[in-house]
Amino acid sequence: MTQLHIGFLIYPGVIQLDVMAAYQVLCFPSNTETHLIGKTSEPIISNEGLTIVPTTTLENCPQLDVICVPGGGIGQVEVMKDADVLNFLKCQSSTAQYVTSVCTGSLILASAGLLEGYQATCHWAFREQLAMLGVKVICERVVIDRNRVTGAGVTSGIDLGLTLLGLLCGEDVAKMTQLMLEYDPQPPFNAGTPEAAGEEIVKSLMHAGKPLIDAFLTQTQETAAQMRFNE
Amino acid sequence: MTQLHIGFLIYPGVIQLDVMAAYQVLCFPSNTETHLIGKTSEPIISNEGLTIVPTTTLENCPQLDVICVPGGGIGQVEVMKDADVLNFLKCQSSTAQYVTSVCTGSLILASAGLLEGYQATCHWAFREQLAMLGVKVICERVVIDRNRVTGAGVTSGIDLGLTLLGLLCGEDVAKMTQLMLEYDPQPPFNAGTPEAAGEEIVKSLMHAGKPLIDAFLTQTQETAAQMRFNE
Repeated sequence: MTQLHIGFLIYPGVIQLDVMAAYQVLCFPSNTETHLIGKTSEPIISNEGLTIVPTTTLENCPQLDVICVPGGGIGQVEVMKDADVLNFLKCQSSTAQYVTSVCTGSLILASAGLLEGYQATCHWAFREQLAMLGVKVICERVVIDRNRVTGAGVTSGIDLGLTLLGLLCGEDVAKMTQLMLEYDPQPPFNAGTPEAAGEEIVKSLMHAGKPLIDAFLTQTQETAAQMRFNE
Repeated sequence: MTQLHIGFLIYPGVIQLDVMAAYQVLCFPSNTETHLIGKTSEPIISNEGLTIVPTTTLENCPQLDVICVPGGGIGQVEVMKDADVLNFLKCQSSTAQYVTSVCTGSLILASAGLLEGYQATCHWAFREQLAMLGVKVICERVVIDRNRVTGAGVTSGIDLGLTLLGLLCGEDVAKMTQLMLEYDPQPPFNAGTPEAAGEEIVKSLMHAGKPLIDAFLTQTQETAAQMRFNE
């Protein structure tokens, strides 16, 4: 069986579960090898304060079968304008079987021009920003358009991972993985979408997240202007 | 607002998502402080090969409001008979507001005698083993019995985390967290329980997992015999 190389970009401020959910799923089959790709080999600190140690670097990363870009907190703004990272993503994506993201990771893919003309999704609070980058935004949990596979907010990484396993290794392997992870979700509350959570919860969360949303917006507008300039 | 100290036991061979799912949820409110508790301060390697760096040790860990014990692969067998770890859990549990576990973490709690006479759950493949340790096993996603809160296999950590947040911080905070994490699960397959997955998938997975299940069984039998001896 061919060994599949699956790489996750990691960077200061990455949301750790954006990585770890899909990572856990994609680690399971014996024919996958997962990589945590740092800009350098230095440990990075996630948005939550978790230390994550890269297993490879932009420079040393093998050619990947799947590249996955997770979202982050404020640290993501730097990544969206980091030429080294964007070039790495462009280069890997030219040969990868699947180019994927979780949460606001799709804003990074789009900043590299890798979602132009594609349908894709992201965390519900950043959909307008994703559209600014030339992406046809689809409000679904996991969106597949040719070899681009993008997930919604944070926890969609599990659904994205299982979807990818089904595509890469077949339905039986995906089902075995789901059973091993006992993925039989039973949220104790019904608040996983803005519609379900209701106006008050959405308002509180948007208020708390405003500095982050604004910082992302400034960068998104700059990237969009640059894209128009380059046309 | 009182700061809540929430600690996760980590050890070589821990299943990283057993930790990281609940960790992500419980990190969100501003009044929680999370700890990753190693036996020593040395980084540990998870069952998947992920390096996890402890933020504290058994010796230096502050008094916890919530202690959470995640499950593991073969490395968990050592933990189930590690007097230092079991004493730490007994000591912290005597003052903690909630004593919790994800997946086979409940076998560790039970090995410390902390689930005797309690209702609890664990990963579906280890329920009989949990029962051997004097636990009344309930086949539910999250089981609450007084201040013991236990979760089923791996991904139940999200449901467990949200349940705990509801208890600790109120329903609105739990709902905001769920919305932030866009926890609106949509598994692409229906195989999250043995019943849903069907006989063939269960058989393949049990076959692949047999060495692990047997190793756990040997340790569980020894612990159960010791418990009877001590009575």
